[in-house]
Amino acid sequence: MASAKGNGVALVKNIIKFVGEGGGFDKLLEKVKVVSAGEGRCLVEMVVEERHLNKGGTLHGGFTATLIDSISTFALMTRGGGAPGVSVNMNINYLKPATEGEEILIDAQTKRAGRTLAFLEVDITKKNSGELVATGSHVKFIG
Amino acid sequence: MASAKGNGVALVKNIIKFVGEGGGFDKLLEKVKVVSAGEGRCLVEMVVEERHLNKGGTLHGGFTATLIDSISTFALMTRGGGAPGVSVNMNINYLKPATEGEEILIDAQTKRAGRTLAFLEVDITKKNSGELVATGSHVKFIG
Amino acid sequence: MASAKGNGVALVKNIIKFVGEGGGFDKLLEKVKVVSAGEGRCLVEMVVEERHLNKGGTLHGGFTATLIDSISTFALMTRGGGAPGVSVNMNINYLKPATEGEEILIDAQTKRAGRTLAFLEVDITKKNSGELVATGSHVKFIG
Amino acid sequence: MASAKGNGVALVKNIIKFVGEGGGFDKLLEKVKVVSAGEGRCLVEMVVEERHLNKGGTLHGGFTATLIDSISTFALMTRGGGAPGVSVNMNINYLKPATEGEEILIDAQTKRAGRTLAFLEVDITKKNSGELVATGSHVKFIG
Repeated sequence: MASAKGNGVALVKNIIKFVGEGGGFDKLLEKVKVVSAGEGRCLVEMVVEERHLNKGGTLHGGFTATLIDSISTFALMTRGGGAPGVSVNMNINYLKPATEGEEILIDAQTKRAGRTLAFLEVDITKKNSGELVATGSHVKFIG
Repeated sequence: MASAKGNGVALVKNIIKFVGEGGGFDKLLEKVKVVSAGEGRCLVEMVVEERHLNKGGTLHGGFTATLIDSISTFALMTRGGGAPGVSVNMNINYLKPATEGEEILIDAQTKRAGRTLAFLEVDITKKNSGELVATGSHVKFIG
Repeated sequence: MASAKGNGVALVKNIIKFVGEGGGFDKLLEKVKVVSAGEGRCLVEMVVEERHLNKGGTLHGGFTATLIDSISTFALMTRGGGAPGVSVNMNINYLKPATEGEEILIDAQTKRAGRTLAFLEVDITKKNSGELVATGSHVKFIG
Repeated sequence: MASAKGNGVALVKNIIKFVGEGGGFDKLLEKVKVVSAGEGRCLVEMVVEERHLNKGGTLHGGFTATLIDSISTFALMTRGGGAPGVSVNMNINYLKPATEGEEILIDAQTKRAGRTLAFLEVDITKKNSGELVATGSHVKFIG
């Protein structure tokens, strides 16, 4: 639904603003641009910058994990209710490196949200080629 | 061996200094204190600060993942040769939250390093109580 | 391409016959029915039987893992070359139980196969409702 | 405590007998020998047989997963209360192959069991050499 999607974008923009305030770790997400959001899904894009890199010059595995953690949480929060839940497990596969200046898409989906647990999955791809950079799953306790 | 361990500490201190220079993601590790290192193992400690937190006031799952990624890589690098390898898979279980001001220990071990793959495991515990905050595994390609 | 898909089905049927011979563990897959296969993908279906259950009367987590392991390996083998590779990591999320008599679909895809590593992902769903039973990722060494 | 451990062994023997009855999947565990059990831990041993192998002649990844799933569940059940819980996530790293005739030890520990979730970890090693065959983590819902 177009309006719901629009509301989802506004909601996630507000979440990113909120979690980035103060001096917490999510400040790292301030340059993420929300493409679409709503109904348990959240798609954002960003440009890989120097501060996201490891010393080998590619996207740091810890930052990749941070994107999977946070963007999947935003996806979950679009379902209504809005509680972020608490992480139980996160699993990440690293398929291909991304380098400085590359645009990446982070696409997070809620696969299931029951009474106590939510299962989320994330694909990170290169915007130009569509190649997968990383895939991840994230289980959250929402009881 | 005491001297080897001492050498390991100096080595990891140099690695942390090196990876934190420039403006990459590992700058986040600058306040990590190396307790012991050598022979495929690396034990560090740090104090949880505001900038490591999620909006719920606990250690951010993405920062936890960053610690598991980076400290296990340092453990691997103490084995000689020194190459950091490339991440293939990382899995993290979140057992208990840690809050601002708490001291945590990050203990990374090389479980196996073959010709092409290294398997690393990490326990993050509260220094005072010994309680597990998170456990993780990290598979790296080192071929 | 219809003919390639057809060849894929014949190929996977032969693989299932081959791996089930002798007395190995893959004998458990003998009743799996190949729906489509080819180009790195393999879709099979089966009926949950008593011998696949845990004592709680639902699909056993170990059998779920076996399906993810084996069917993703067959998907990989449809890419040509045909080597099954060696497992490095497998991760499974259990979303919903399946019970005796239910038909399930196991859909395995090759997300990337490079020179040394292959990344595979699997969805197990209920045929009637489309609900996810489990999702899994499987990393194999193919170097 | 010797007596508690002894009770743990008897308890797990009964569990293996119980889950192996009827015609469920845990029948596969009938030849597992309980070494010690109690207080959230369970150590068993077994000999790798032909029926546990993949077509490459090594321990099947799906059977490895089954061992991790089931033995960690038995470990959890030794804590009292006795409920097996429901699997949420399982992650397995495959370090080294095991072949027919080799004796393996499966050592499962409860890392945390809270009100709703239990976190279990398992090492599978070769009895003779102590080499790791696989490591795994298992998250169960016990609420």
